[in-house]
Amino acid sequence: MLTKSHIAVAQNASGRNLHVPVYTIDCGNPGPKVYIQSSIHGAEVQGNVVIYQLIQYLATSKIHGSITLVPNCNPVGTNIKAGEYTLGRFDPVNGTNWNRGYFFDEDAVNKFAKGVSETDTEQDIKASFHQYWRGLIDEKMNQSWGIPLAQRLNLSLQLLAHDADIVMDLHNGPVSSRHIYVPEYAEKEIGLFSVKHNIVIPNQFAGALDEASFCPWWTLVNHLTTKYSRSYDFNKYAFTIEMGSQEVINFEESKTDAQCILAYLGQKDIVADCAFSPRNMARYVVDLENYATLYTDFGGMVEYAAKPGSLIKRGEIMARVLNIDELDNANAVTEIAAPCDLIPILHFPSASVLSGTQLYKCFTNYRVF
Amino acid sequence: MLTKSHIAVAQNASGRNLHVPVYTIDCGNPGPKVYIQSSIHGAEVQGNVVIYQLIQYLATSKIHGSITLVPNCNPVGTNIKAGEYTLGRFDPVNGTNWNRGYFFDEDAVNKFAKGVSETDTEQDIKASFHQYWRGLIDEKMNQSWGIPLAQRLNLSLQLLAHDADIVMDLHNGPVSSRHIYVPEYAEKEIGLFSVKHNIVIPNQFAGALDEASFCPWWTLVNHLTTKYSRSYDFNKYAFTIEMGSQEVINFEESKTDAQCILAYLGQKDIVADCAFSPRNMARYVVDLENYATLYTDFGGMVEYAAKPGSLIKRGEIMARVLNIDELDNANAVTEIAAPCDLIPILHFPSASVLSGTQLYKCFTNYRVF
Amino acid sequence: MLTKSHIAVAQNASGRNLHVPVYTIDCGNPGPKVYIQSSIHGAEVQGNVVIYQLIQYLATSKIHGSITLVPNCNPVGTNIKAGEYTLGRFDPVNGTNWNRGYFFDEDAVNKFAKGVSETDTEQDIKASFHQYWRGLIDEKMNQSWGIPLAQRLNLSLQLLAHDADIVMDLHNGPVSSRHIYVPEYAEKEIGLFSVKHNIVIPNQFAGALDEASFCPWWTLVNHLTTKYSRSYDFNKYAFTIEMGSQEVINFEESKTDAQCILAYLGQKDIVADCAFSPRNMARYVVDLENYATLYTDFGGMVEYAAKPGSLIKRGEIMARVLNIDELDNANAVTEIAAPCDLIPILHFPSASVLSGTQLYKCFTNYRVF
Amino acid sequence: MLTKSHIAVAQNASGRNLHVPVYTIDCGNPGPKVYIQSSIHGAEVQGNVVIYQLIQYLATSKIHGSITLVPNCNPVGTNIKAGEYTLGRFDPVNGTNWNRGYFFDEDAVNKFAKGVSETDTEQDIKASFHQYWRGLIDEKMNQSWGIPLAQRLNLSLQLLAHDADIVMDLHNGPVSSRHIYVPEYAEKEIGLFSVKHNIVIPNQFAGALDEASFCPWWTLVNHLTTKYSRSYDFNKYAFTIEMGSQEVINFEESKTDAQCILAYLGQKDIVADCAFSPRNMARYVVDLENYATLYTDFGGMVEYAAKPGSLIKRGEIMARVLNIDELDNANAVTEIAAPCDLIPILHFPSASVLSGTQLYKCFTNYRVF
Repeated sequence: MLTKSHIAVAQNASGRNLHVPVYTIDCGNPGPKVYIQSSIHGAEVQGNVVIYQLIQYLATSKIHGSITLVPNCNPVGTNIKAGEYTLGRFDPVNGTNWNRGYFFDEDAVNKFAKGVSETDTEQDIKASFHQYWRGLIDEKMNQSWGIPLAQRLNLSLQLLAHDADIVMDLHNGPVSSRHIYVPEYAEKEIGLFSVKHNIVIPNQFAGALDEASFCPWWTLVNHLTTKYSRSYDFNKYAFTIEMGSQEVINFEESKTDAQCILAYLGQKDIVADCAFSPRNMARYVVDLENYATLYTDFGGMVEYAAKPGSLIKRGEIMARVLNIDELDNANAVTEIAAPCDLIPILHFPSASVLSGTQLYKCFTNYRVF
Repeated sequence: MLTKSHIAVAQNASGRNLHVPVYTIDCGNPGPKVYIQSSIHGAEVQGNVVIYQLIQYLATSKIHGSITLVPNCNPVGTNIKAGEYTLGRFDPVNGTNWNRGYFFDEDAVNKFAKGVSETDTEQDIKASFHQYWRGLIDEKMNQSWGIPLAQRLNLSLQLLAHDADIVMDLHNGPVSSRHIYVPEYAEKEIGLFSVKHNIVIPNQFAGALDEASFCPWWTLVNHLTTKYSRSYDFNKYAFTIEMGSQEVINFEESKTDAQCILAYLGQKDIVADCAFSPRNMARYVVDLENYATLYTDFGGMVEYAAKPGSLIKRGEIMARVLNIDELDNANAVTEIAAPCDLIPILHFPSASVLSGTQLYKCFTNYRVF
Repeated sequence: MLTKSHIAVAQNASGRNLHVPVYTIDCGNPGPKVYIQSSIHGAEVQGNVVIYQLIQYLATSKIHGSITLVPNCNPVGTNIKAGEYTLGRFDPVNGTNWNRGYFFDEDAVNKFAKGVSETDTEQDIKASFHQYWRGLIDEKMNQSWGIPLAQRLNLSLQLLAHDADIVMDLHNGPVSSRHIYVPEYAEKEIGLFSVKHNIVIPNQFAGALDEASFCPWWTLVNHLTTKYSRSYDFNKYAFTIEMGSQEVINFEESKTDAQCILAYLGQKDIVADCAFSPRNMARYVVDLENYATLYTDFGGMVEYAAKPGSLIKRGEIMARVLNIDELDNANAVTEIAAPCDLIPILHFPSASVLSGTQLYKCFTNYRVF
Repeated sequence: MLTKSHIAVAQNASGRNLHVPVYTIDCGNPGPKVYIQSSIHGAEVQGNVVIYQLIQYLATSKIHGSITLVPNCNPVGTNIKAGEYTLGRFDPVNGTNWNRGYFFDEDAVNKFAKGVSETDTEQDIKASFHQYWRGLIDEKMNQSWGIPLAQRLNLSLQLLAHDADIVMDLHNGPVSSRHIYVPEYAEKEIGLFSVKHNIVIPNQFAGALDEASFCPWWTLVNHLTTKYSRSYDFNKYAFTIEMGSQEVINFEESKTDAQCILAYLGQKDIVADCAFSPRNMARYVVDLENYATLYTDFGGMVEYAAKPGSLIKRGEIMARVLNIDELDNANAVTEIAAPCDLIPILHFPSASVLSGTQLYKCFTNYRVF
């Protein structure tokens, strides 16, 4: 029921293969396919312990469908140390974000949609689209002049996830509260998770796995419903879940994190007789366009006064910046105030900042679910 | 005639302003405005010596119009050491390429174009567009939540360049022959330079200064000529010139580099009685879509057998990769052959590569000008 | 009474001077000279806020002697970003620790000691030694072939500190409790601070400022007492104080930190009528040889279970390491137990570690003061 | 005759073993043991190709004794990319030079020497010392609190080399001519190599493999000859050979490099009927104390005018530094002149330097062998 394999996704400068572990749980029961990965950004490690907890629970559970778990999915990013920390968000050679090279092509979806007839069942369409899409990814990976490192890594993972019904990409913020990205068409799913802060994102592809997973289906549904005036629902969902702060693993919290995912899978009847349910709690929801970034206009030493997850009123102090050349006068400390009512979700992890550093990301104009 | 000033473009973590020097040569004669900058990528330093040579010559020349020279235009990137080298292509905090944050907005150009009447002279349109565009850049720089470091740097420089008639952005490749990027509509300008390798780029904005400088005018001309069926020529040109290899300055070669630019300015009658003319030479030209990148499929130690600028036949060996685990057998060395006839223009600067590293960029399907 | 100046300690790659601010408080009253600096390691920033708080208090206090405060004393290290963090412990070009290039020369002390006669007063000896030592530092700085960057920075600061009676070098650990390094001969001073964890160090020079400040006097005393069999006390003290965790500044805690220093200066009657006294508290003391480093034998993802400052019994779990290739079996988590009773003082700041990483530094065989 | 194995020397953050390949050639003939490794500094890669060439030749040669070849001996350092280059000289976590953690203990040698009786043969002493020394290294590696990453790597390699009669550690300089470090007592060996620039080093241990290999024997000989007034010669030799510039591999030059080593092994009758002999050439020799480092007093953009290996007269220009803030006046370019007659051996590999950067290392007061 639980099987383990490894796939090679890259070679290092020693010429050796770098592998990613793939755990699969499949009881032979029909049902959806779930794909969960963690640590595409090397410093964002909590998801690895969460997958460990998931495996402990799922190994002895009854599953409908299958669940594929891929911890530590970026063996390059995990191993790039810059000082004591992990430089895991981008390739140190060229600055490429490890989470921007997945495949999506709107024109290709529309081309496929043109071949769908009104009588095709959703199951037929799914099967045929999976094959079509896999072919496109394969083609991308086999270009005669080669492809970049980050892209090959992303596409190798996407091949594992391309036909999944539910995709979860486990991340962390810098210093961060837990939050989740949910596609606009699936906003109702928010209630099936137990995550306090929820970001609703439109059908726009910017390179990440969640987008690469849901954009094709959203686009396809749009195309088909326009064409045939009947409704389609492929029951495809993809989420990026940010499980707290980077550079930290915490076993105790990983249990709660895992229960949140298990509760979701229980609601979907993928985990039978699930011991966990979504919690009864306030959920804050924001549209992506209102998830605002606060940059500092000047450099210096910063105290982050506003804690992630707290409710901050317009004008409250979010940060204090110390100017070491002015310690003897009134310019020693500059206070940065909240431009509006907001919830800070994450802040920069270092006290030393240049001007133009992203100090905070904040919910503004949010609503309660 | 030669004046010098400094502008602050950022603050470092000590809270101190970082300045960029601005040299301007203006004899009070009417004429075009020229803007030349160097080292937006910190490790690409040859342009700084070229500007030094330009200043030596121009200080005693008769100039029509004005020439602004901004060496070392990225005081952040210049000062980021990673080991002995300069990590100058991107912000080490977030991977942002220092040459991708300039401003362009196609819709804004079209909106402006709608306000142009058929009787407006080119001079009127220019003046009015300069003002309009400057306003948009100002607005971008003054957003209430702040803007990122790289973007502020780029926009600060763009304010110096936004009304220039000729823009030159001096770069270097990693290990590289000299080459130049020329906009498609200005292909004839190639003959006014003395650069052996020329890349013709379409009217597409990807964030760089040359694109940010010519895309507005190209877009405007397209819009107006469609609308009014008369021809427009604003005589606006922008080029990225790659002056050899990064991490190296060479005074002797900088004289030739400077003469190449002076010859161009002489042809445009900006430098009066110029001592230098474009050379009589073969010029290779390629369309951007045929400027191909060769990635390695595997990691290891690489010898770069094909030298930048050489003519390579299909099947010739471009690189040899040593596999240190197979030194005792036939797999010790893998040879990478040219997929077609090509001219390698630049190659990766390190012998140690991961799979997916960009080994070479090459002219394919090139023509001779 | 409060004066401010700046000294240049280096030039960056733009060819510009990098300055260090020097604040001095001197009421014209006779008394000892105090020297306090912070952030020689760029990521260790809390001392800068502590100096800010000290200045607030001292600016309106009556001082006997003088107090020199040098915040942010390493403008190079402060500004080296590697990812989001500050690579502040060593020069990124060559790995040189910024706190290892101060000057000490045992032979030079002994040579000086030979010239001291039995009738010389301590005050005479001090004055004459200050001049002698300053000459040696000057000579070191003016070698004809030049000196390395880190050494020039260190010696420039040492020139400010060379004749101080009390030297305090403010540092931070990675994730760390507050602790202090005290020279063996000055162990009794521990009671004048309010620091819970105290490390007693022998008269051995390893390059740091505290050692460079007290080793000459300790050596001199040893030499003279052997020679003349009378006792000498130059009342020279030097301390490295570790004020919590790196990459964090906290204004509230900086007040307590400053009060700890003020209390010490009050006890020494340097700050007259000081509002603060050493706290009545348990102080743990360890000899340097019992300040033990725990390395991990294997790589992986680490949870730091033992909190800095806690009392840990032999066999208690200090860390858990997750092995992502073994999540389906009993090797998934390895527990690292305390080899003996100990107090963890600091731990590594990242969850991702290679084998041989310094996980913890611990008090063993400690005593209570 | 040629065998290959791998040893694990570390684990990465994924928890996976990092291996070093070990090639051994042994025809079963009695004779000395030779140990050759390359790339302990990750960016210094030419030695790997040299070992490849050695294996090609040796695999079909008659060998007396055995030859162990360990290419790419630092799988951590090889794989640390910082930008496009390899940050291979030191551990990015803590700045530790990868070539400073080998074992030597003068007291331990002296303790051993005390147990040697006058009648012991050199062969007996060797055998007994090898065992003794191996025990000490084993003990060092098995400390109960663990040891640092770089030290374990070094000691793991030293275990392979500890009983070798000839040790060669293949390095590269930054931009460098070929040169070799030879222990003082073995200066006559210089003639057996074909290296133009030779540095004679005293019996002082600073952590490197060559020192760790010859210091024990040199110390032992000193001790025994003092004690017994007879002469001892254990025929132990160790060399660090710098094979040109880092970040480059060159197959053609690797053949010459390999022939240089083969010629030496031929002279020692380890390679029978060797096709290569030491070249008839001028060899420059310098004592380590005269191998001088030239630091720059200021930061800026540098042209390296003096080429490695050239003969430079006192007062000749070695470097030009461009100051980008002074391009309009006489301070634009500063020339750095040779302080005395010298041979530059290597220079810094980047044009961008801070003040205090090591510009050149030079032979001064050299002699011709």
